[in-house]
Amino acid sequence: MAGPDFPVQEYENRLEAIQSSMSTAGLDALFFNTEAEIRYFTGFRTLFWQSPTRPWFLVVPRSGLPVAVIPGIGAELMRAAFVGEVRTWSSPDPDDDGLTLLVDALRPFSRIGLMMGRETSLRMPLADFDALRAGLPGSTMIDATAMVQRQRMVKSEAEIATIAEICAIASKSFAAAPMLFREGQTLAEAFRAFKIELLRNGAEDVPYLVGGAGQGGYGDVISPPSEDRLRAGDVLMLDTGATLRGYFCDLDRNFAIGHASEVARHVHDTLWRASEAALEIARPGRTCRDLFEAMAGVIGEDGGDVGRYGHGLGMQLTEPPSLVGFDETELQPGMVITLEPGMRVGPGKIMVHEENIVIRNGPAELLTERAPPDLPVIGG
Amino acid sequence: MAGPDFPVQEYENRLEAIQSSMSTAGLDALFFNTEAEIRYFTGFRTLFWQSPTRPWFLVVPRSGLPVAVIPGIGAELMRAAFVGEVRTWSSPDPDDDGLTLLVDALRPFSRIGLMMGRETSLRMPLADFDALRAGLPGSTMIDATAMVQRQRMVKSEAEIATIAEICAIASKSFAAAPMLFREGQTLAEAFRAFKIELLRNGAEDVPYLVGGAGQGGYGDVISPPSEDRLRAGDVLMLDTGATLRGYFCDLDRNFAIGHASEVARHVHDTLWRASEAALEIARPGRTCRDLFEAMAGVIGEDGGDVGRYGHGLGMQLTEPPSLVGFDETELQPGMVITLEPGMRVGPGKIMVHEENIVIRNGPAELLTERAPPDLPVIGG
Repeated sequence: MAGPDFPVQEYENRLEAIQSSMSTAGLDALFFNTEAEIRYFTGFRTLFWQSPTRPWFLVVPRSGLPVAVIPGIGAELMRAAFVGEVRTWSSPDPDDDGLTLLVDALRPFSRIGLMMGRETSLRMPLADFDALRAGLPGSTMIDATAMVQRQRMVKSEAEIATIAEICAIASKSFAAAPMLFREGQTLAEAFRAFKIELLRNGAEDVPYLVGGAGQGGYGDVISPPSEDRLRAGDVLMLDTGATLRGYFCDLDRNFAIGHASEVARHVHDTLWRASEAALEIARPGRTCRDLFEAMAGVIGEDGGDVGRYGHGLGMQLTEPPSLVGFDETELQPGMVITLEPGMRVGPGKIMVHEENIVIRNGPAELLTERAPPDLPVIGG
Repeated sequence: MAGPDFPVQEYENRLEAIQSSMSTAGLDALFFNTEAEIRYFTGFRTLFWQSPTRPWFLVVPRSGLPVAVIPGIGAELMRAAFVGEVRTWSSPDPDDDGLTLLVDALRPFSRIGLMMGRETSLRMPLADFDALRAGLPGSTMIDATAMVQRQRMVKSEAEIATIAEICAIASKSFAAAPMLFREGQTLAEAFRAFKIELLRNGAEDVPYLVGGAGQGGYGDVISPPSEDRLRAGDVLMLDTGATLRGYFCDLDRNFAIGHASEVARHVHDTLWRASEAALEIARPGRTCRDLFEAMAGVIGEDGGDVGRYGHGLGMQLTEPPSLVGFDETELQPGMVITLEPGMRVGPGKIMVHEENIVIRNGPAELLTERAPPDLPVIGG
């Protein structure tokens, strides 16, 4: 059985940083029940989270090592992780699925931080959470979302190296596009071919692969692939979140099938110039809003509302911050973000483009192999 | 863009069944925020749930069609789904991420059911959920877990056909094991080869692939693959939850590398006979506990506690019911379940075995190609 993905120093650094923030904020403990946070602080990584049956808990005290409160089935893997203590129960349990153990673990603490804010969820039954609150009358639950997100936004060199590796795998896979995609192929076949290419090139998993194809643009960017066949004049887009040791890349690429329309080439060029404008100014001191506005300036108002223009990236496909007008987060060295401008091409048609970068002292560093400014044509 | 995966009649049946239960229970509406439930009632299927940024909501009234309250980015796909109305907002929003729209959608209802019980979670920020409760002073939130789980446990023929198809794909992929796995290969390589085989054979995704290998058994069944190399005498186990149109199979198979020890062969035979004992009695009128006890009877007390011996299967890798001593759920035609006996082989070593079946009037039907009673040997 493999231990955590990084040397112990990585987890010690993470713990030290969060405990310092907890001290400043006057929090006695943090309580986590979600995959990313538990993995971030302990290195506990398993696909077993796919099963919704069992809850998993972690308590991070203001001083000392984290305490895991988990189903017995995970005990061996968790003991190899960065925790001071592993408390287990036999789960599923019809009457008490870890709740008594959890109340006991949290009772010593009066100010308990947890994730309650934007981009978070509660991965345990709501009834059990209500019972937890009722079972801790002496404790106050405090929103620690900002504190935890602020820390996770800035990646260590070890994290950046992992993300860079999966970005390189995805870039290499996209470079094989002329061999993978062709006119007459169904979108489902194209997706399958690309997934296999990603795995062959070293991706561990492909939890996210969406895309679309259509004459001069595509209808949406979240659908599963259809059985429609690629036709000459289609623009094909694939957007992939492949993973390596639990870290994501998140990039997309466009390809014209057979030939590219004037409009599609123009839009691709505009999106490329938009990401270039953001790339040029992406450095410490600038804000997420600055990047958003740099891209919006190139795209112009007729680009329409196609959501934000990028986001944080790491253990999750999308993480804070957001490249939107309301996000004033200052860029810091070590932040890994996506540049993801999009625009309306025509009625019900859009095009998007996405690169991954890391903020450095000085110019940002591209983690993806930069897309060409000219829309590539396959089989032309 | 593809519409829902099943004909509209499927969703009409689901709606009619749940509305009948709601009427009996005196519920005015159901409120959902999780992927499986929203997909179950509307057919809305997208990998976009991988991004934790945006919440998605569905309101199912006691009469009439469901109302979706979702981020604008999903509007087009949701309009093609089985809903009466789609209300959208531009998400992410820093101050009101759909909450006002959601409160408005739920305000007409006084008794609102939601998923609060075992095997559920809350996929929206807790702070927003607290605000939702506070914003609906005239409404009561009632746990509807049992009602929804009871309905989802029994699959339609359309669902069963989809699960049967992905089970056949996984069985075919396991049949290729002698070509895929070999002594000297790392576990990571074996996993990658198997994932590619699944995709080649028609799987859409492989969200879950865990396993282990070791001399005469493996240490745990939830770890990611290591870089350890397969050695003669190892027992290799792969447990896969591959998907097709959003439905899972969940089966595992064991292989001896080079040669099989006496103990490993004995344990494999015992596990096979345990699943056979459950298979023989699996029919309407029997309970989950009966199946559990049939398997426990074969395994004996020295099998140790390796969790439950199976579970429901469908849109999620694991669903209710559970094959455990406390689950008195009566088997009904259309229930798809896994038979998953496991036992301790020695200190820190276990072996598991898993088949998928559907309960029918009369004997149960195997969806997986039955494993051979004798532990298969690769490269012997």
